[in-house]
Amino acid sequence: MAASIKDVAKEANVSIATVSRVLNDIDVVNQETKQRVLDAIEKLDYRPNILARSLKTQRSSTIGIIIPDISNSLYPEIVRGAEDLASIYNYNIMLCNTDLDKNREKESFNILREKMVDGIIYMGDSLDADIKAAIKNSGIPVVSVGTMDDEDEVPSIGIDSYSGAKEAVEYLISLGNKNIAYIGYDRETALEHEKIYAGYRDAMSNAGLLNENLVYRGNLKYEQGIAGINKITESQQVDGVICGCDQMAIGVINALREKGIKVPEDVNVIGFDNIALAAVYHPKLTTVARPLYDMGSVGMRLLIKLINKLPIEESYYRLPYEFVKRDSCK
Amino acid sequence: MAASIKDVAKEANVSIATVSRVLNDIDVVNQETKQRVLDAIEKLDYRPNILARSLKTQRSSTIGIIIPDISNSLYPEIVRGAEDLASIYNYNIMLCNTDLDKNREKESFNILREKMVDGIIYMGDSLDADIKAAIKNSGIPVVSVGTMDDEDEVPSIGIDSYSGAKEAVEYLISLGNKNIAYIGYDRETALEHEKIYAGYRDAMSNAGLLNENLVYRGNLKYEQGIAGINKITESQQVDGVICGCDQMAIGVINALREKGIKVPEDVNVIGFDNIALAAVYHPKLTTVARPLYDMGSVGMRLLIKLINKLPIEESYYRLPYEFVKRDSCK
Repeated sequence: MAASIKDVAKEANVSIATVSRVLNDIDVVNQETKQRVLDAIEKLDYRPNILARSLKTQRSSTIGIIIPDISNSLYPEIVRGAEDLASIYNYNIMLCNTDLDKNREKESFNILREKMVDGIIYMGDSLDADIKAAIKNSGIPVVSVGTMDDEDEVPSIGIDSYSGAKEAVEYLISLGNKNIAYIGYDRETALEHEKIYAGYRDAMSNAGLLNENLVYRGNLKYEQGIAGINKITESQQVDGVICGCDQMAIGVINALREKGIKVPEDVNVIGFDNIALAAVYHPKLTTVARPLYDMGSVGMRLLIKLINKLPIEESYYRLPYEFVKRDSCK
Repeated sequence: MAASIKDVAKEANVSIATVSRVLNDIDVVNQETKQRVLDAIEKLDYRPNILARSLKTQRSSTIGIIIPDISNSLYPEIVRGAEDLASIYNYNIMLCNTDLDKNREKESFNILREKMVDGIIYMGDSLDADIKAAIKNSGIPVVSVGTMDDEDEVPSIGIDSYSGAKEAVEYLISLGNKNIAYIGYDRETALEHEKIYAGYRDAMSNAGLLNENLVYRGNLKYEQGIAGINKITESQQVDGVICGCDQMAIGVINALREKGIKVPEDVNVIGFDNIALAAVYHPKLTTVARPLYDMGSVGMRLLIKLINKLPIEESYYRLPYEFVKRDSCK
């Protein structure tokens, strides 16, 4: 049986009100009495009832994370960065998977409001009007991680996806590739992926190489990388590929291998994100690296500042991406 | 501003006590009044204060998950299985990363107790006396996922790691391998990994092939797979390898490739766990598959039964493993 505040009061030979004053750090208790209460708390391993205290302070020391799918290899590292930072400040993490279903995303804001979380990290593919309304209605500080809010209404952390994609495609062009395929995400409301697509289009267009038949859009899964490259190569010659994510790039390379086409000897392939797998896959994947762990920790730091009403320098953090050259291009 | 219980009472033209009775499903309110209250709740989008209710019911509808590291590719799928099941029963998930640090594991039980979680899923590498004491002291239902409690004091979900490893090594022997290395975990308190090691030793011993120089133990990381195979091949011929986890197996294959040694042509390699990567890596990895998603969901189902004091058939669930033959052995 856990010790109660009564037990502590009895042990320290003071009133319950005095124990309460010590717990709430109200400075009217003399030092000697205070020490006696603290000793009693330690001796009895008394844990003040956090829920009761939350009710009073309206704070739960809990932060909600709304996430598409923790088993998608992109998110665990972001969540780990967020959790490490949160635990430094004594916050705990509550997780809601949404599978990018907009209704589940909105419901998650409601659930987290009911749980009285102090703040929310939002990860989803679009900050559309509905989501912004849900954020506003929640009345809770929210930071978007991964998807930037170009209107700067929701504080956000991300990278310059457009430039990352453009640089990668320009690199393929510099290697002599002319028939460069884009295999990416098909949801047009997904802001960051539209930027990747725009970076691809501009780089190709600038070089006079744009060809709509080299474009395939599907969901962001391994299988769609396979489907995409198989579809495009039915009618097109391909010497380079940029993908919306690393999983798709690995699908592309495996599908090409099945056909006896070698990467990078015959085709150059570039991914996006730099998930853990990219560095250990064979061939090691050239990719546009998002600083996943940092995105989580910087996002959480910003959120905790907002929760505590501390001044923030800016609410729109574009972290540097890194174009990582490995073995899938030559 | 969110609606309060007062607003609902006013809107429905009833007393606060009546609203409270409807919310707590106490059946003394007549149907017509009840409906009026429910309509008012819907109209005002009133969310009862869960914390206040938790305090009364001593339930938070939250389940804690204690986990070594969410960014380790083993755990996201288990957590996803657990969360999917929890959300069916309207529970939310609170996450604590411990990095297998025993002090942080014990502290996590305290934190989760303070947060008044209704139950805890524990993932760690040993159910030692300290952890069992922490579980007992918490006074909260706990289910161990991944690590079985052979003493059956803590309800647990896992696989028969010993038989899985033994079957895999016997398979290597059946392929004609004689110099089969074991590259696994070095923490002797890690129960499941000791079973894998025992399975290896027994299979080798039965075939008269046991050789201590073929054993390397380190942490469960990719880099240790590389270090392990490099160390062993300094002095030994190797024709087969079984690893304590898939990441190590991939390290082994990459290290062998660096030396110009081909898998599976020259050396057969088997992993353990069947993380997502195993099926897409090249060569596709032969491995002992643990049913990760199912371990999470079955563990959560068991925990929710315990929380609700429902009868359970058994508290020790050994789910079937699957020996998955892919392309890293021939």
